[in-house]
Amino acid sequence: MTDETIEIEGDADGYALEAKKVQKILTAVETGDERQLASLLEPLHPADVADLLEQIEDRPRADLLDLWKSGFDGEVLSELEENLREEVIDQLTPDALASAVRDLESDDVVDLVEDLGDEQQEAVLDALGAMDRQAVETALAWPEESAGRLMQAETVRAPEHWTVGETIDYLRGEEDLPDQFYHVILIDPRMKPVGYVTLGRLLGSRREVPLRDLIEDSFRIIPAMQDEGEVAYAFNQYHLISAPVVDEDGRLVGVITIDDAMAVLDEEHEEDILRLAGVGEGSLTDRVINTTRQRLPWLAVNLVTAILASLVIAQFEIALQQIVALAVLMPIVASMGGNAGTQSLTVAVRSIATKDLTGSNVWRVIRREVAVGLINGVIFAIVMGIVGVIWFGSPMLGIVIALAMVINMVAAGLAGTVIPVILEKLKVDPALASGAFVTTVTDVVGFFAFLGLAVVLLL
Amino acid sequence: MTDETIEIEGDADGYALEAKKVQKILTAVETGDERQLASLLEPLHPADVADLLEQIEDRPRADLLDLWKSGFDGEVLSELEENLREEVIDQLTPDALASAVRDLESDDVVDLVEDLGDEQQEAVLDALGAMDRQAVETALAWPEESAGRLMQAETVRAPEHWTVGETIDYLRGEEDLPDQFYHVILIDPRMKPVGYVTLGRLLGSRREVPLRDLIEDSFRIIPAMQDEGEVAYAFNQYHLISAPVVDEDGRLVGVITIDDAMAVLDEEHEEDILRLAGVGEGSLTDRVINTTRQRLPWLAVNLVTAILASLVIAQFEIALQQIVALAVLMPIVASMGGNAGTQSLTVAVRSIATKDLTGSNVWRVIRREVAVGLINGVIFAIVMGIVGVIWFGSPMLGIVIALAMVINMVAAGLAGTVIPVILEKLKVDPALASGAFVTTVTDVVGFFAFLGLAVVLLL
Repeated sequence: MTDETIEIEGDADGYALEAKKVQKILTAVETGDERQLASLLEPLHPADVADLLEQIEDRPRADLLDLWKSGFDGEVLSELEENLREEVIDQLTPDALASAVRDLESDDVVDLVEDLGDEQQEAVLDALGAMDRQAVETALAWPEESAGRLMQAETVRAPEHWTVGETIDYLRGEEDLPDQFYHVILIDPRMKPVGYVTLGRLLGSRREVPLRDLIEDSFRIIPAMQDEGEVAYAFNQYHLISAPVVDEDGRLVGVITIDDAMAVLDEEHEEDILRLAGVGEGSLTDRVINTTRQRLPWLAVNLVTAILASLVIAQFEIALQQIVALAVLMPIVASMGGNAGTQSLTVAVRSIATKDLTGSNVWRVIRREVAVGLINGVIFAIVMGIVGVIWFGSPMLGIVIALAMVINMVAAGLAGTVIPVILEKLKVDPALASGAFVTTVTDVVGFFAFLGLAVVLLL
Repeated sequence: MTDETIEIEGDADGYALEAKKVQKILTAVETGDERQLASLLEPLHPADVADLLEQIEDRPRADLLDLWKSGFDGEVLSELEENLREEVIDQLTPDALASAVRDLESDDVVDLVEDLGDEQQEAVLDALGAMDRQAVETALAWPEESAGRLMQAETVRAPEHWTVGETIDYLRGEEDLPDQFYHVILIDPRMKPVGYVTLGRLLGSRREVPLRDLIEDSFRIIPAMQDEGEVAYAFNQYHLISAPVVDEDGRLVGVITIDDAMAVLDEEHEEDILRLAGVGEGSLTDRVINTTRQRLPWLAVNLVTAILASLVIAQFEIALQQIVALAVLMPIVASMGGNAGTQSLTVAVRSIATKDLTGSNVWRVIRREVAVGLINGVIFAIVMGIVGVIWFGSPMLGIVIALAMVINMVAAGLAGTVIPVILEKLKVDPALASGAFVTTVTDVVGFFAFLGLAVVLLL
């Protein structure tokens, strides 16, 4: 059975796979039309084929791989989401796997195998030539998510005393230049990078010009042990196109290019968004059971938070029994605090990630968030005070909800900023953990302030 | 008064401005030590200087700009957040502004002036030479957030029949090559791009090789009217480094490079995160009053949502009066639903943005989210059922909360997926509007299911 299709992306110049094309491909798979399938898939970029495999159901996916085995491209494997990658590798014959992997650059192979199980990793490595295998194994020796893993080992370099002419002659004589390179890295006799020259400059200069006269200001060296998130930050912040990577002794061991940094930036953002929403590492292709398992811990934390809030409410059973309006209105105070807290914490978490919230301005940001909470608190206090009076005809009830609103929104601004900052200090990812803490604060403060004030002023 | 400093980023190889260096700079500003200030600021990248200006308070910022006028760099202006950029431009003398802007590339000037008021825009344009001014005005004629605005107008191109040697000779003779370029674009006699050659290939090939033999598979042409978000998607999806931009007649009018696409990707992500959290376009440097204003509409929407939920609760006043435990437990059901809904909607919103959720798999994703909601619902129903029984000693109350939990978590999965998809169909940004709708659903369903079941089963 195939799904009914709804066209989400109607934009003509968009890049999404059209639903119609997907339908055609599925029809070709169903009818076993190998030639039609190949003619539909071949013009597609491997990244689009990977998206296609992610979007269709298990049965047609297996059939498609069966039918298309011969043409299967290693880059499609690179582009697939991890969980699906393992499945697809299992479905490929050893021959198909070998031919698919052999065309890949060594850094793509690293990316491909690093999250595979031992057995599958071995199968892929076996498919490689001895040289490539060694390059992949060297890269895998660097820690996960380090610059060493991200870099490609092939570099294009020249001694610092060369001229443009010498460099061009050397490049022309070189058999095995990397697919993509944008700079020639200048090195000293001990292999330490001392600068780089863009290819554009090299091409635009006369042969006798020394390379040294052409080096770029933007030159930055990346330690191989640096976290890939820091690498992505540096590329984005300093507009780098490529950067040399060095080992602990400062010797050139590889180069990272902006496309890899862009992919990391994209992943880190995605991770932050999902973490802020309490969704672990989820993706659409995960099995129901895996998704359930990923989301469960977050919901469990929320349950504890919610029960804590209920314990606060339980302290006020007598008040609730006497004035049922309190039960009706109390979720409003908690909800407004929760929302204001989420606003503050999101700004704080992002500002920490982009290094805009630092030791130099943390107090100022806290003051600002509290001020914003206070002003919005007063505005909504007035609104809710009036609503309370009109709805329940009790001016004092209006005053109670208004005061509770101000208190909770100030608490929201404060907690929403301070909690992420403290978590960051404790080396806990603020995107991951802030939400639960901030909601606890706004729930507890909200219910306590509202019901507590009600007891004092209304009973 | 300067802020106390808390060191957030302790990582030695991180790129954040160190609090100590910020302190030193502030001290130099306070003591009016111009030489010390210049010696501290000069080694910094313009992006770091911009971050510094964003992090310090208004008074020292004004003093710093006063003291440093002579050395002020146009790139710092490019890197500043919009709201601060206007302030800083106002503080610069016309001379300082002119000398700062004159060094910039024309696409950076476009980026700088496009959000300025008319008067400031005029001031910047007046500072430019006639040629640059014209280039900037041509770029500004393209719509905001289009590829035309993003591109640089200077392209490096060659007729399709040229050889490597001819191309290198041409490049060497050319006076005014762009600062950054990575490809030579091949054009036909009508200026239509037909392919491109990487500089690496050009350098690595013999002089007599025709360019046509070296063109890359990855070649993609971008229409100048395309939305910049689509451009960033294409660069990320297809691993582009640069891409030619064409007008409606298919003629080459510019080129977009990956660093610009990376900046757009970064901005769009940021926007999505902030929108999901109900924070408009906020940044840390906004004034309190602006931030308050940005956040207010979202809180107002939430207030309406919360009042709606309260209206549901109000229907059950009698039940609440008779069983106060209902008031204690009801926020738990709503809160769990709200969290589960946020999980589903975040995954849906992101999947729509990355084009992973399309017409081909929307039904499957909905089924999956409902299934996840059901399973997690049952698990937490059992937990809460037991908690209910133990806490209030009423097995029937346990059953009520358990059933309500299952119902609300299934509703959360359904609403969290369907609402973003419908909003996208209606051309409303799902990141912007989904949250309010989904929370309304989970609040209303949660309170109604719990209190309604209580009336049926407990009274």
